Amino acid sequence: MDVYQAITRRRDVRAEFTGAALDDETLHRVLDAAHAAPSVGMSQPWDFVIVRDPDTRATFHHHVHTERARFAAGLTGERAATFDRIKIDGILESTLSIVITYDPDRGSPAVLGRHAIADAGLYSVCLAIQNLWLAATAEGLGVGWVSFYQEDYLRSLLGIPATVRPVAWLCLGPVERLQEVPDLERHGWRSRLPLERVVHHERYTPRADTG
Amino acid sequence: MDVYQAITRRRDVRAEFTGAALDDETLHRVLDAAHAAPSVGMSQPWDFVIVRDPDTRATFHHHVHTERARFAAGLTGERAATFDRIKIDGILESTLSIVITYDPDRGSPAVLGRHAIADAGLYSVCLAIQNLWLAATAEGLGVGWVSFYQEDYLRSLLGIPATVRPVAWLCLGPVERLQEVPDLERHGWRSRLPLERVVHHERYTPRADTG
Repeated sequence: MDVYQAITRRRDVRAEFTGAALDDETLHRVLDAAHAAPSVGMSQPWDFVIVRDPDTRATFHHHVHTERARFAAGLTGERAATFDRIKIDGILESTLSIVITYDPDRGSPAVLGRHAIADAGLYSVCLAIQNLWLAATAEGLGVGWVSFYQEDYLRSLLGIPATVRPVAWLCLGPVERLQEVPDLERHGWRSRLPLERVVHHERYTPRADTG
Repeated sequence: MDVYQAITRRRDVRAEFTGAALDDETLHRVLDAAHAAPSVGMSQPWDFVIVRDPDTRATFHHHVHTERARFAAGLTGERAATFDRIKIDGILESTLSIVITYDPDRGSPAVLGRHAIADAGLYSVCLAIQNLWLAATAEGLGVGWVSFYQEDYLRSLLGIPATVRPVAWLCLGPVERLQEVPDLERHGWRSRLPLERVVHHERYTPRADTG
């Protein structure tokens, strides 16, 4: 699949997972794409934990829905009604999950390019996530990023050391189809901004209309 | 260009920029690809500042080299000698630069999916950066991420408000060619890890051999 096509077709999937099997070769290609991402000082500070165990996923799913309720409790009126219609995860329906973590000790102590910006290693992990997402899209798979969780809860669930930070819980697997319009836009949560509103020339120009 | 090809061919460019002109249509496609990235709660918290002005770039280049010297001062022996050979930026040679920022107020106060993980918005910005990088690669352009800078210095240089965080300074433009092996690997700074060392099953398994 062409790069631009993958970038455009990629969706954050919740409802469309089929749960069908995913062969090891395809999973390997997708992980290899993530691992080919650039990283500060070539530190490659990411790890990928493949979670298939139904019990682990059910336990995490329960936690995510506790967090969903906490967020919902802070909403009122139209926001509350709109959020109520939005499915926030496909943890149980997808084929498997991949938890991506950040290890700041990888390549330490002298990580080239990280001395002035401590978060640069965290940024590298996110670049790997986007590679994974686009490769999965090219394979006809769906990816759904779940972020309704407490990091310490996830650490404890998967035995992640205190020095390592969980960055994402991704659901992965075959899908019936990819939606053409993102869920949050279809459900009226928020719209796309025109590109012009986020492009500046030479200097940053604060704008009041970006919501 | 095929997704996997772009993921594999993408390099972090320093020495290969030609400085040749870049037409507006191509730049627009690359920015549009970045803007098509997923974002937490569809917040689209990114901004792109296109910097062409030679004075701004020269000023920033000077700052980057001050920071380079600070990092170099902390190295000794083989690390110092190896780092000495490594070019860390193409700010002056590339056609233009793009500074990407993160605005946590975009879509606030209730950013769906960010209540438990404050950095989720920052992660979204990095996904946009990787989209930009792959689109540029497909266009035959080079991208070089410069991270030897103090965020407050860059804020002040470009008039970025205190509430907005600069995430990356990217050099962009036509290149003579893309290297097949990353600079840091060719210069002996650090090698690629085998994929198996960063993949775990069901639980995180601490390993001593990832450097």
